[in-house]
Amino acid sequence: LGSEELRQAICTYLRTSRAVRCEPEQVMIVSGSQQALEITARVLMDAGEAAWVEEPGYWLARQVLRAAGCKIVPVPVDSEGLEVAAGIRKYRRAKAAYITPSHQFPTGVTMSAARRLQLLDWAERSGAWIVEDDYDSEYRYGSMPIASLQGLDRSARVIYIGTFSKTLFPALRVGYLVIPHDLVHRFAGIRNAMDLGPPHLYQAVLTDFLNEGHYARHIRRMRLLYEERRSALVEGLGRQFGSRMQILGAEAGMHLAVTLQGRVRDVQVAERAASERLWLVPLSSTYFEKPARQGFILGFAGTTTAEMPRQIRHLKSILEL
Amino acid sequence: LGSEELRQAICTYLRTSRAVRCEPEQVMIVSGSQQALEITARVLMDAGEAAWVEEPGYWLARQVLRAAGCKIVPVPVDSEGLEVAAGIRKYRRAKAAYITPSHQFPTGVTMSAARRLQLLDWAERSGAWIVEDDYDSEYRYGSMPIASLQGLDRSARVIYIGTFSKTLFPALRVGYLVIPHDLVHRFAGIRNAMDLGPPHLYQAVLTDFLNEGHYARHIRRMRLLYEERRSALVEGLGRQFGSRMQILGAEAGMHLAVTLQGRVRDVQVAERAASERLWLVPLSSTYFEKPARQGFILGFAGTTTAEMPRQIRHLKSILEL
Repeated sequence: LGSEELRQAICTYLRTSRAVRCEPEQVMIVSGSQQALEITARVLMDAGEAAWVEEPGYWLARQVLRAAGCKIVPVPVDSEGLEVAAGIRKYRRAKAAYITPSHQFPTGVTMSAARRLQLLDWAERSGAWIVEDDYDSEYRYGSMPIASLQGLDRSARVIYIGTFSKTLFPALRVGYLVIPHDLVHRFAGIRNAMDLGPPHLYQAVLTDFLNEGHYARHIRRMRLLYEERRSALVEGLGRQFGSRMQILGAEAGMHLAVTLQGRVRDVQVAERAASERLWLVPLSSTYFEKPARQGFILGFAGTTTAEMPRQIRHLKSILEL
Repeated sequence: LGSEELRQAICTYLRTSRAVRCEPEQVMIVSGSQQALEITARVLMDAGEAAWVEEPGYWLARQVLRAAGCKIVPVPVDSEGLEVAAGIRKYRRAKAAYITPSHQFPTGVTMSAARRLQLLDWAERSGAWIVEDDYDSEYRYGSMPIASLQGLDRSARVIYIGTFSKTLFPALRVGYLVIPHDLVHRFAGIRNAMDLGPPHLYQAVLTDFLNEGHYARHIRRMRLLYEERRSALVEGLGRQFGSRMQILGAEAGMHLAVTLQGRVRDVQVAERAASERLWLVPLSSTYFEKPARQGFILGFAGTTTAEMPRQIRHLKSILEL
């Protein structure tokens, strides 16, 4: 499962900052959320079984499910998060639901309490699993952190996925799973057959980093910095585009999404922008079926406040071509 | 696929020291040979297809194949390595053969040139794949290193697996694959869905370690050290057990195997030894079907020459109980 000391440190962190209910025996260290998804799919899903995914949603999650031979059931997301009733109508007997309730990818919606309870109720009644990918919930601006869905779960139906890729850096390749007690043994078996376990050194260093308080300080510091950058982006977009642009999900995380009035061919625009070294993710690429919206995902965490106005003008000039 | 610089460095190393025929584009960095096997099984094998494995052989390889739903065909190993003719008789249409030709695990046999050509011929004729696990060939005592099987392959049927777990340390979790050109794309696809890629820092450090000659020096130094330890073990066993004990595969690697005259219940002996902190791997546990031999795998690389006589006396006292 990984270093015992690191699993203890993560457990303490998740209990206090994410209201996750866990013991160190339930925590498995993995090489990022991609491996977490991969192991989860191998344990929970047989080929041909169905899983709900958010529409629009995270493409790598769909890729893992597809590679496992699963039937993918896209369930729409509205301003309260995943439309559980729609999921039940489309495919009640799904074996699992993959969701990002804290800060939905890509729309940035936070799942409402009512929807969370509705989803847990469905999972409990139908014996389905909920895979909660809590990839960037550490960064929430202007309001208190949202507790995890896992913390509300009374029936051990939630597999919780977290990562240090967003809060520290992706090349670290360290994430973690919180696994219901009665599944730990099966997760460990699959993981052992996959790669034996994670490298030791990073785990030892991360343990100290967490236990000595550096991680909490780092997050507090970065939250202020990213909030500044987020505000610079939101205000700058407002000035340049006004009511022609709608901004989604700017309350948390390291990205927001924008849609524009009128017809935008987001893939073509993103390609043009990339040729000028401006990186926009087209919103349409996050749909599994026909895209309901076009627009862009804009990451703001890596652009300084001073640099932001120039980048926004660049975006505007590309959109006006 | 991993860091370009590291793939270049590994390529140079494999060409010169293992006679592997490769370009950096064929090298993929993985988290050890277990992940290499896992990716290989996912790319090459569909559920229900058959793979030859060595009997006796490496249990983790069988575990990966079983997890992939494959039919496992144990093929006996004699003093020339895998009995290719027996494999063809048992299951000619197998999709792949998993082998350790440089230093067979656990018997330590080096596969003969005739058998290598016979195996390559079978693979070419029947369109099968050969998975060559070259896990500890760097350490060969008393004779020149044996070239890889991959270097003999003219039909791109061999997937070559190497690791730094034996030459450096397992907690590093770094290994590599050399993949035939026309399979690289499929290997990359599976790998990307599994964990995106390896952590960067170790790769950067390993690149320098290889390019600046430290790795080659380390291996030369350790080869002398391990040879000393190996000789201390072989001589000590000879003194204590004489002709009652047969020693197998002591010409290379970090372990050898022993069998004893008379009836030995190796699992029970190994359990008793473990309770006294002496670690013997029972030979019978490396068989897929009914064990043809009982005995022990003894690792010698981690025991100093000075410590060896005491450990051998300890082994003798346990065997005499």
